Amino acid sequence: MAIRTEKDFLGSLDIPKDAYYGVHTARALENFTITGVQINHFPRIIIALAMVKKATLAANLEFGLIDEKLAAAINQACDEIIDGKLHEHFVVDLIQGGAGTSTNMNANEVIANRALEILGHEKGSYKNLHPNDHVNLSQSTNDVYPTAFRVGLLLSHADLLAALEQLIGHFKDRAELFKSIYKIGRTQLQDAVPMTLGQEFQAFADTLSEEKQRFRDLEGLLGEVGLGGTAIGTGVNAPKGFAAVACKHLAEISGFSVTPAANPIEATSDTGIYLTWSGVLRRTATKLSKICNDLRLLSCGPRAGIGEINLPPVQAGSSIMPGKVNPVIPEMVNQVAYQVMGNDLTVMLACEGGQLQLNAFEPVMVANLFQSIDIMKRAMRILGDRCVSGITPNIEHCQKNLEKSITLVTLLNPQLGYEISSEIAVEALTSRRTIRELILERNLMSSEDYDALIKESTELD
Amino acid sequence: MAIRTEKDFLGSLDIPKDAYYGVHTARALENFTITGVQINHFPRIIIALAMVKKATLAANLEFGLIDEKLAAAINQACDEIIDGKLHEHFVVDLIQGGAGTSTNMNANEVIANRALEILGHEKGSYKNLHPNDHVNLSQSTNDVYPTAFRVGLLLSHADLLAALEQLIGHFKDRAELFKSIYKIGRTQLQDAVPMTLGQEFQAFADTLSEEKQRFRDLEGLLGEVGLGGTAIGTGVNAPKGFAAVACKHLAEISGFSVTPAANPIEATSDTGIYLTWSGVLRRTATKLSKICNDLRLLSCGPRAGIGEINLPPVQAGSSIMPGKVNPVIPEMVNQVAYQVMGNDLTVMLACEGGQLQLNAFEPVMVANLFQSIDIMKRAMRILGDRCVSGITPNIEHCQKNLEKSITLVTLLNPQLGYEISSEIAVEALTSRRTIRELILERNLMSSEDYDALIKESTELD
Amino acid sequence: MAIRTEKDFLGSLDIPKDAYYGVHTARALENFTITGVQINHFPRIIIALAMVKKATLAANLEFGLIDEKLAAAINQACDEIIDGKLHEHFVVDLIQGGAGTSTNMNANEVIANRALEILGHEKGSYKNLHPNDHVNLSQSTNDVYPTAFRVGLLLSHADLLAALEQLIGHFKDRAELFKSIYKIGRTQLQDAVPMTLGQEFQAFADTLSEEKQRFRDLEGLLGEVGLGGTAIGTGVNAPKGFAAVACKHLAEISGFSVTPAANPIEATSDTGIYLTWSGVLRRTATKLSKICNDLRLLSCGPRAGIGEINLPPVQAGSSIMPGKVNPVIPEMVNQVAYQVMGNDLTVMLACEGGQLQLNAFEPVMVANLFQSIDIMKRAMRILGDRCVSGITPNIEHCQKNLEKSITLVTLLNPQLGYEISSEIAVEALTSRRTIRELILERNLMSSEDYDALIKESTELD
Amino acid sequence: MAIRTEKDFLGSLDIPKDAYYGVHTARALENFTITGVQINHFPRIIIALAMVKKATLAANLEFGLIDEKLAAAINQACDEIIDGKLHEHFVVDLIQGGAGTSTNMNANEVIANRALEILGHEKGSYKNLHPNDHVNLSQSTNDVYPTAFRVGLLLSHADLLAALEQLIGHFKDRAELFKSIYKIGRTQLQDAVPMTLGQEFQAFADTLSEEKQRFRDLEGLLGEVGLGGTAIGTGVNAPKGFAAVACKHLAEISGFSVTPAANPIEATSDTGIYLTWSGVLRRTATKLSKICNDLRLLSCGPRAGIGEINLPPVQAGSSIMPGKVNPVIPEMVNQVAYQVMGNDLTVMLACEGGQLQLNAFEPVMVANLFQSIDIMKRAMRILGDRCVSGITPNIEHCQKNLEKSITLVTLLNPQLGYEISSEIAVEALTSRRTIRELILERNLMSSEDYDALIKESTELD
Repeated sequence: MAIRTEKDFLGSLDIPKDAYYGVHTARALENFTITGVQINHFPRIIIALAMVKKATLAANLEFGLIDEKLAAAINQACDEIIDGKLHEHFVVDLIQGGAGTSTNMNANEVIANRALEILGHEKGSYKNLHPNDHVNLSQSTNDVYPTAFRVGLLLSHADLLAALEQLIGHFKDRAELFKSIYKIGRTQLQDAVPMTLGQEFQAFADTLSEEKQRFRDLEGLLGEVGLGGTAIGTGVNAPKGFAAVACKHLAEISGFSVTPAANPIEATSDTGIYLTWSGVLRRTATKLSKICNDLRLLSCGPRAGIGEINLPPVQAGSSIMPGKVNPVIPEMVNQVAYQVMGNDLTVMLACEGGQLQLNAFEPVMVANLFQSIDIMKRAMRILGDRCVSGITPNIEHCQKNLEKSITLVTLLNPQLGYEISSEIAVEALTSRRTIRELILERNLMSSEDYDALIKESTELD
Repeated sequence: MAIRTEKDFLGSLDIPKDAYYGVHTARALENFTITGVQINHFPRIIIALAMVKKATLAANLEFGLIDEKLAAAINQACDEIIDGKLHEHFVVDLIQGGAGTSTNMNANEVIANRALEILGHEKGSYKNLHPNDHVNLSQSTNDVYPTAFRVGLLLSHADLLAALEQLIGHFKDRAELFKSIYKIGRTQLQDAVPMTLGQEFQAFADTLSEEKQRFRDLEGLLGEVGLGGTAIGTGVNAPKGFAAVACKHLAEISGFSVTPAANPIEATSDTGIYLTWSGVLRRTATKLSKICNDLRLLSCGPRAGIGEINLPPVQAGSSIMPGKVNPVIPEMVNQVAYQVMGNDLTVMLACEGGQLQLNAFEPVMVANLFQSIDIMKRAMRILGDRCVSGITPNIEHCQKNLEKSITLVTLLNPQLGYEISSEIAVEALTSRRTIRELILERNLMSSEDYDALIKESTELD
Repeated sequence: MAIRTEKDFLGSLDIPKDAYYGVHTARALENFTITGVQINHFPRIIIALAMVKKATLAANLEFGLIDEKLAAAINQACDEIIDGKLHEHFVVDLIQGGAGTSTNMNANEVIANRALEILGHEKGSYKNLHPNDHVNLSQSTNDVYPTAFRVGLLLSHADLLAALEQLIGHFKDRAELFKSIYKIGRTQLQDAVPMTLGQEFQAFADTLSEEKQRFRDLEGLLGEVGLGGTAIGTGVNAPKGFAAVACKHLAEISGFSVTPAANPIEATSDTGIYLTWSGVLRRTATKLSKICNDLRLLSCGPRAGIGEINLPPVQAGSSIMPGKVNPVIPEMVNQVAYQVMGNDLTVMLACEGGQLQLNAFEPVMVANLFQSIDIMKRAMRILGDRCVSGITPNIEHCQKNLEKSITLVTLLNPQLGYEISSEIAVEALTSRRTIRELILERNLMSSEDYDALIKESTELD
Repeated sequence: MAIRTEKDFLGSLDIPKDAYYGVHTARALENFTITGVQINHFPRIIIALAMVKKATLAANLEFGLIDEKLAAAINQACDEIIDGKLHEHFVVDLIQGGAGTSTNMNANEVIANRALEILGHEKGSYKNLHPNDHVNLSQSTNDVYPTAFRVGLLLSHADLLAALEQLIGHFKDRAELFKSIYKIGRTQLQDAVPMTLGQEFQAFADTLSEEKQRFRDLEGLLGEVGLGGTAIGTGVNAPKGFAAVACKHLAEISGFSVTPAANPIEATSDTGIYLTWSGVLRRTATKLSKICNDLRLLSCGPRAGIGEINLPPVQAGSSIMPGKVNPVIPEMVNQVAYQVMGNDLTVMLACEGGQLQLNAFEPVMVANLFQSIDIMKRAMRILGDRCVSGITPNIEHCQKNLEKSITLVTLLNPQLGYEISSEIAVEALTSRRTIRELILERNLMSSEDYDALIKESTELD
């Protein structure tokens, strides 16, 4: 392999000649062979980094700190990365020490070498254009990396919320289709009072719908960034006023509302927003897990369970039991939810571990949040497309379960009082008869009135 | 002990004659001897329950469903509980099965028996006024209990936020006092660039200040309640329009904005708001834990550590080492934070465990959230009053640590460039000299200019 | 209130005249008003502390370090505490800073003052017998407290394992009673192949039985204590050989195998055993939670669910639905399990937080582990006595569910092959017929042979 | 792309002609595009699966259930996989529904198609040799997959423990090198009593050494497998006695002690061992995290912190601060520990989620445990090789910190008593003098005796 040599204060190191990264990245490759997954596994963090570099470049230009020709080359390199190019050169491991320094160094080097190339220079000829002196000008990992993290999360919202919306749509469609199917509602896994299957699915849709606004609510907070604070928030080595200008450019480039943090020193060490964001995703995960538990319960059978709905078969369920079909899609979603909850704990631990003017553990937060985003997004898509959209009702089962339920006596409570209602309930239970039979026998109500009562009991205000 | 006898469908049971609770509470006492802590340990949930009962009573009156004389007695009983009376009769265990039914039954019985007493009847003479038929009229545990939970959280905000505010105030006071004390900032526990001790404490104040709005942001969501939905949200046994009227009254009684949930079926099983709330408290806990870690680090010594600040001594630190003083208040806060984080996991597990039309596990959420509130509130008060307010700076240490720091060379970067700066850094490190010495020796800057540079480097925009 | 005055290096403090505790405890009462629960809420930690004090006293005597008359008084005081007396004077809060110093100081003071009383002196006249110089002689909180923690856990094993054993017994009894009730087994909540209801309950018994040995396995490790290491494990202020002698006495007093840790420096800061122990309890909790989920699933109904078993009714289930009975005991156990899992996280966080030569966060571990022990013990007792022991089978439901299950075709697989079996399964499903009907129709097997095949399929090796 | 067509009960599907997997795997690829990581990312689970297939094949031969020629081909295919071949055809996603069915199906298909190839048949010509009828003979996913999981964990022990052992060795080497360097020990981050730097590192070595046995202790339990239980543990479709024979062969093939579970029904749904195992790894992670926190604390500086040790520089620490070197290796290990703790929570959630006769969530446990193993193994190697092995002491700092420490007065306690010692401590603190100075001034001891006392205080029994 053709190589070039670069050096840092530890000495010289051979770099593959074609590599856009340099010595600092190469050191990180030696130091961090942990997950075996490179940071480019989550492209949005790379794109966000390039946006931040492009924005600080624009600010540096505005402050007259950089030569225009160099700037043009750096700008083009950033644009290419934003367009999805060169990502294969972002090679450092997802788990890395150093508060993201290796990721930032990786970005500086790739951008510098691409810019050198654009300018007609050799890769590694940093005397012409330097990763730290030019690409990282007026910046520190400690303001760049957290800013990119926030922008990366903002970039993820569109896809994530689209997947959520699509899933909600599938639930709503089912709710509309099932709106006239009456069934028994259950509390504490015991027969309770009537509802429609449509209402059950509408509740799934509505509980997920609430999540959208929770994410939207965070967008403003995500946009408050410490950019310009450099090493510890005091703005060492950046000109006065840099934060505002850099944020203005970042807002334009990213399309998001981006503003300087009120107290950049606080912002440099604070990772609270990631925990908040993780907490929102965790909540969505618990809701999805609960819904999938319900789908599995309601489809329990096909013969010997509740069996009120049928999930569409998507694969053979058993290597030994012919014809068995299992609720594999909801099971997958449950596992995704467990993963998201575990990842959330990792994020919390990393947040709590920050010390003094910096939290050194942001890389593991990045790794966990972006994984959680990916798997949630995909799980929701698949749940919608391959499961919910194909659910059919088992109307006969719904009706039978409703008819034989004893707590229907609750509906008679207002007319008959708690005491007599209780007696009827006990008689039904011990005599193995239905409430309808006992009502008709006692001439308490006509069969038609009883049916009407059940329907009416499900009508919301 | 004098007794009276009450019965339910399981048979008769002896109740202490003076007890305001009745047979359902007595059953719960038999079934749930778990934590040994009664629900009255957290008075706000009792008060909130009484408010909900008072509100539904007002709604029942408005709908003409209850006799005015009975209503007046029930109303007086509720008022007494809201005023802090009769709490000792709310005796069921914090951890209980049944989705809060035992707590609701306990409330119904205490209110009914107190109302009977007001009306001149014997306790237990439920034919005159019935816990279920009158006190629980148009209600179910499944709408009353979650509503009371939300109102209980709202009732807790004032105290919790006052404790937070007071702590923030102490940090701000220190920040003001320490604003002219220069020190070295640290990233990744390594000497970085200058800042003031005041800035360090201002960052503590500011990061906690952000928390206040996070709680406030939830008040609207907490006020959306499922009241009126009764058993599963369909409103069985409550008149049409009950939700709106009951919420109107609850808003008046509690002083909070209370509105009916958009989809009461969804609201009945959804516990997402508790997890969200827990997530906010968890974040505050991680921030407090980080701050206390910092206080312990910065006061590490008294002689052989960083020792930039002195925590006020509050007790002898050691049973064996004379004169040893330990950072016991921050250590206590760290443990409170760990407890809050553990409690948060319990809440998450309980949330995820809900099934179909109800989550049966709200009691353990109540227990954990109200414990977390109590210990956080007290911990913040104590941290402020007995620790932060008495912190003194160790100015000599701050100065010495700053003076000898090598990363001060960063400040020279813009003038000298990264290469020469690095050389100076290495020379300082190996020769055990200070940056100041080398600068003066090389005639790069005057001592006064160097001092000015350090000061200037800490000035924010 | 009559008072006496004591002083420490912070100054004088009034102490209630009757209090056995002294100034250090009083300081802790001021500093730590957190949970509102005193350490005596968990008597075993108090008893264990007294055992450790008694053992070190015996060692001090053996080394000739203490006057025999003083020793006799201290010894009597320790014995009284071991017998359950004076616990009301162990008043410091469960959550406290200082690595347990306040608890150890509290013990030193109570023992000293009781010993002074025995010797005919006034409380507080420490010149005659001193809490630190005599009761704490050759000790530090840092070896005493962790040793007492370990002994406290050992003391808890008997009760905890007895509760577990009793619960296992109830499951075994049910297993025996239900051994001839055939039913369909379920995997992934879908009908699978036959088993007996007895086998289902035997699996509950067996999975819990495994837990016993897991606790037993830890007894040796719990018995390895750092006693004698004093402040940081180097044994400062204790005579050479003290550890072995003190452990010998502690073994005699407690009845457990107690041995000195191999490396007392390591032992002083290591809290791994608590996390291991917590992990074992957590596993038991997950198993109990899974079992209770199963009990709730299997009893889902009474009419419209799986309904293969009936849980004994223990209280009215609903404030609105007459006759509704809920699985409140299993629901309580689920919540206890969630609490134990949350407490386990708190323990883990505290473990991870240790620094250098000590872990300052043991008090919160004590609080959480002993709470977990209490609630698990009680939950298992109640689950056994008030639920499992009264479970009855719903034989008719079991039979019907078995008969109509389609995966029974699996049993024909070996004779008919996967292809034909699959065809029969599909035909049964679409035609709504049973496997038995199709087999008889096709003359594949006699009805008797088919019954025999089902029975045989449930026979283990 | 050349294709072949296969079918299942859902219809036909195109499969790449060269693929060794078949229709069931292809369905899973459609259903589970979640993590984007295939099961072959963790080769040990693939190898373990092949071992289980080989063992059951041997048992089937012994029971005369399979043709010898077919068996030979299957056996060869298994051997190839055990040798690391064909892994690229194990393509299903790490997170998948269906309790591992897709993984087992993938294995059945790859083995069948490779065996067909060996026999000279086309891939997909399952009439000659069938994935389910021959490769999966006498098996179910429900016994095969958990057995492979256990064997996979056993296969991981060697590497994991070797990495641990190597790290321990590095700590021991440092301990030996540092054995004569005296320093102040710290409790609660406050100066305590003397120790040697060697003792500090020996404690790191010893606390990690304990972990080895914890893993070894689990090997017997891991070897208890449910193989032979098939679908729900009753052994449907496997001959009587199959479990014992299959385990015998698996023991021979794997080299581990493998025995049939006592109650195969219990074993089928029980996932307790994974949680136990995860708990052990979690404990190791907390210890590593604590150690890395200590390394970062002790090397805090280089000038303005504790600075008692120097970590070897492995990369430039900052993109902005020239010459800054950060503790990036320990920081990486902290993050790995957080990841392991988060993964452990995911495992716990999955364990708790099992229902009735099976736990459907084992795939996510596999994914998390094997990831945790990999990252822990690598992190320990790197910590040892690139950090611990290069740590140097900062002797001057150690001495200075020791000399000026005030708690040295503790050593005088036995001679002078607690009162006088306390006075000396306070005088030293307020007068900014050392204990040595005050002792010499008061003629309490000679300088030589004082030195000897310090040395002696660090000597263990």
